[in-house]
Amino acid sequence: MTSYSAPLDDYRFLINDVIGLEQVTALPGCGEMNAEMVEAILSEAGRFGSEVLAPLNQSGDREGSSLENGIVRTPKGFKEAYKLYAEGGWTAMTGAPEFGGQSLPWLVTAPINEMMNAANMAFYLCPGLTQGAVELLEAHGSAEQQETYIARLLSGEWCATMNLTEPQAGSDLGSIRTRAVKEDKHYRISGQKIFITYGEHDFTDNIIHLVLARTPDAPEGTRGISLFIVPKFMINDDGSLGGRNDLRCVSLEHKLGIHASPTAVMSYGDDGGAIGYLVGEENRGLEFMFTMMNNARLLVGSQGVAMSELATQRARAYARERVQGRAAGSKDAVSILNHADVRRMLMSMMAQTDAVRLLLLYTSAQLDVASKHPDENIAAQHQQRVDLLTPVVKAWSTDIGIESASTGIQVHGGMGYIEETGAAQILRDARIATIYEGTNGIQANDLLGRKIVRDEGRALSDLLAEIRADAKKRNDPRLSQGCDALNEAADWIVKNYADNADAVTAGAVHLLRLVGIVTGGWLMGRSATAAKAKLDSADGDQVYLNRKIVNAAFFSENYLPEASLLLEKIKGAGQIVGDTQIDFFE
Amino acid sequence: MTSYSAPLDDYRFLINDVIGLEQVTALPGCGEMNAEMVEAILSEAGRFGSEVLAPLNQSGDREGSSLENGIVRTPKGFKEAYKLYAEGGWTAMTGAPEFGGQSLPWLVTAPINEMMNAANMAFYLCPGLTQGAVELLEAHGSAEQQETYIARLLSGEWCATMNLTEPQAGSDLGSIRTRAVKEDKHYRISGQKIFITYGEHDFTDNIIHLVLARTPDAPEGTRGISLFIVPKFMINDDGSLGGRNDLRCVSLEHKLGIHASPTAVMSYGDDGGAIGYLVGEENRGLEFMFTMMNNARLLVGSQGVAMSELATQRARAYARERVQGRAAGSKDAVSILNHADVRRMLMSMMAQTDAVRLLLLYTSAQLDVASKHPDENIAAQHQQRVDLLTPVVKAWSTDIGIESASTGIQVHGGMGYIEETGAAQILRDARIATIYEGTNGIQANDLLGRKIVRDEGRALSDLLAEIRADAKKRNDPRLSQGCDALNEAADWIVKNYADNADAVTAGAVHLLRLVGIVTGGWLMGRSATAAKAKLDSADGDQVYLNRKIVNAAFFSENYLPEASLLLEKIKGAGQIVGDTQIDFFE
Repeated sequence: MTSYSAPLDDYRFLINDVIGLEQVTALPGCGEMNAEMVEAILSEAGRFGSEVLAPLNQSGDREGSSLENGIVRTPKGFKEAYKLYAEGGWTAMTGAPEFGGQSLPWLVTAPINEMMNAANMAFYLCPGLTQGAVELLEAHGSAEQQETYIARLLSGEWCATMNLTEPQAGSDLGSIRTRAVKEDKHYRISGQKIFITYGEHDFTDNIIHLVLARTPDAPEGTRGISLFIVPKFMINDDGSLGGRNDLRCVSLEHKLGIHASPTAVMSYGDDGGAIGYLVGEENRGLEFMFTMMNNARLLVGSQGVAMSELATQRARAYARERVQGRAAGSKDAVSILNHADVRRMLMSMMAQTDAVRLLLLYTSAQLDVASKHPDENIAAQHQQRVDLLTPVVKAWSTDIGIESASTGIQVHGGMGYIEETGAAQILRDARIATIYEGTNGIQANDLLGRKIVRDEGRALSDLLAEIRADAKKRNDPRLSQGCDALNEAADWIVKNYADNADAVTAGAVHLLRLVGIVTGGWLMGRSATAAKAKLDSADGDQVYLNRKIVNAAFFSENYLPEASLLLEKIKGAGQIVGDTQIDFFE
Repeated sequence: MTSYSAPLDDYRFLINDVIGLEQVTALPGCGEMNAEMVEAILSEAGRFGSEVLAPLNQSGDREGSSLENGIVRTPKGFKEAYKLYAEGGWTAMTGAPEFGGQSLPWLVTAPINEMMNAANMAFYLCPGLTQGAVELLEAHGSAEQQETYIARLLSGEWCATMNLTEPQAGSDLGSIRTRAVKEDKHYRISGQKIFITYGEHDFTDNIIHLVLARTPDAPEGTRGISLFIVPKFMINDDGSLGGRNDLRCVSLEHKLGIHASPTAVMSYGDDGGAIGYLVGEENRGLEFMFTMMNNARLLVGSQGVAMSELATQRARAYARERVQGRAAGSKDAVSILNHADVRRMLMSMMAQTDAVRLLLLYTSAQLDVASKHPDENIAAQHQQRVDLLTPVVKAWSTDIGIESASTGIQVHGGMGYIEETGAAQILRDARIATIYEGTNGIQANDLLGRKIVRDEGRALSDLLAEIRADAKKRNDPRLSQGCDALNEAADWIVKNYADNADAVTAGAVHLLRLVGIVTGGWLMGRSATAAKAKLDSADGDQVYLNRKIVNAAFFSENYLPEASLLLEKIKGAGQIVGDTQIDFFE
């Protein structure tokens, strides 16, 4: 069983009955959106994922992309799938209407991103990155640049890439060495970039590279980095493609997973310098890059949700079908669902998938309000919450993506270790998501330092006040205790950070998980309440609604109680890390 | 950095100063053993692992074993390495002296197993399985069978395999269908076996298959399974090899990891029936198999320790060398060791590796006393503890093997996802160890049902009394609280199992982790006490001894506090799993 079935029931219930579509449809520009339309879009996206992308997921993994004479060949069927993807208008779901974009709300693109990633994460990296590039050009490109590039990126005629990393500059982009020298109206770019996802491929005739580089007299570090548009083929004044630019794919990486996605080493300027066009002004490249990074982190978060969902679907299907062992007191062979530990594993996957999906959808809806609400104060309040939760969506979801993928293998037993089964690929694919777009350790530092310490915990307090009110209304002592633990952790962090940054930071990942568990537990509770209300009014599928209630109860019993342990770890265990000297690790 | 350095410092300290070699040297047949000899053997084994096996680990993974026309070719260098392994006498480290075995104590073979596995787990599966076959034949083979096979298995001239699994019979061996029909003095075996590790290879001229099969009139289920010796080549009366037996390797599996190790589908009796020789009597095959399974589980436990150690070595080395980012308040680029979260990751790996290694060594020493002590009562007491802790060694160590391997990738950042780095292979290899030799869920059920419920918690109480006494002596409240939690969990389990087996069993994996954490925390405390004593008397390497103290403190602060959470999960969270009906998962 290597298929994928889009969880449309979940989106319908979670968007309409838990998160609330109305807060998004009330926004300017979203007036035409309604539940039926969302349902139609998501169901079409699910169909595309299941029918077009999912069938290529395993074959793409096995074949991988290959490089020969500078030409990258994606696996069989990928190029055709990309054509269908563009023809279906999916390349245009984000992006402004004046360039042909549909400007769908994030609450709608988040499920689409999840489904496409679940169907074929290695494929979807290409359109996903192009989404980010469009966003960046809309925010910071000149009118001419927008004119030249955005429409053709949104139509799917071209794709875009992000060129950040260099061998010595990974998490620390301040160390970038790629050079950009001004020449007339353009710059000459030279240097090597690594880990460039879809840096070269055969989907489209042209590839638009967004490249971070340093001008000769730029200040050192992060304040001396500029952003350039470097097309693979030059673009003539009439819009037709001109000559080849001075850049090439030197090699592809052999990776643990996402094999179908070509991860390129790119060389710029071997022959005098690639022609690049400055975006905005010099030395503001990193700042521009960060404007799209929040949303890119939500996209990676959706990969975590997707891998968790996919692993859960496969494990459930296998457990239903696999006959092994006998139930207590019986001589008949039974499916492994009859073994309590198998059920426990599946329930842990189901509950956690629900929780991270809820957090992703919640944060996406907050982002819609933040981006579009006419009242500046309301927009700013929502943006504050988005900023707070984005690192949590990214890191917590992807941690759980790995956990579910690994548990999924375990449910399959020996078959899970055999590649044909498909369970192992999910772990291999999921494993990257905690690393790229800022490692989960960096997300945790961002949450702790920029999102909590910097505002002295105010954004978190606002959120906790809302959660506490709900916990009180629902009479949910576990959730209240979770809030207490998180509140105490934040107070302790704010108080101790200045004097003891190392010891405090050592607990950052525990803090991030604590925020995830409390926020996830809150949303799971809201989901259970909504499900009960629908059950009471006999509205909807009883089995489904009951499952949501049980998932929430399982989450509450198995994960919320971690809160006090995490608090203890944050307060106590960081000190020993902070105190440890470097020579300890020699 | 893909090398391996044997942790000889650890073995020296842990065996001599924490576990106590003297309890083993006092045993009959172990009188010649002393600290110098153990040091010499381990250092030689470490050298062999580092110099001969480790250099083939990555190339073996990349090349894999292949099957062509029924012939399996292992990766380049493996056959030669096996020859050196046998010449070095390593095939003979277990096994009785009368057949040429060295009958080393388990306390010595456990570190050897760990080192060989860390150096090249895929290689070591072959000698590891042969160790088990020798043990089985020594216990249950006829004098003639012992004469024919054991010496040549111990010399390394032949290898052995274990043929248990069939497509419909994995964890539930009662469903085996392979047939054995008596014919004169032998049987004719026919059927298909899957997941046969080194079922076919090019290391040796002959392969001795131990095969579980069912005679025509055998009772159903586990009580109707017999064990047979089925050699690849028949053995003439003069000991020379005769004709080919009727068995063949049909295919090899494509696995997530341990690529160098051929995992065969074996077909017996396509041409009238393979000749097999009954071991012991009919219908006792599974019972015989279980006599060696305890020790095979310790061997798999050593794989968990090995993977955790290997991942830790690689991550430490990478973190020392990788320069990225700046320390707070500094403009100079620093190694990533300066980032608190990286230190936290490394410390979690170091502390947990210490803990699982200690538990493995402790259990191995207990097994030595159980096997060799002249006083039956003392032997039985120790055997009881071995029985209690063996599933914990197997499951907890291998869980931590996976966790460390995954954390190791995370420490490497993007480089961890690239196969050349070697970090990803450790996760791929480690992932099998929680599945085979009884999944970790089955280990947990064994611990809960057979080792705790069956004797109403007495074996565990004896262990807890010892731990409590130590905790009191050391004034270690965290360890005492861990004991309380474990004690309460066991009482609750014993009391509720009969009426509510499903809900209780749903907490089995939490119970196993709780036993691991409390026992591991106890041994880590003993390790810290021993290190302090040595520091006080200025005996030994200060940096090393201090590291042991810090590792123990880290373990105590980060893992022991989980005890009360695990208790809560055992008592509370199982009910929801127990109550859930099968249709929940439809």
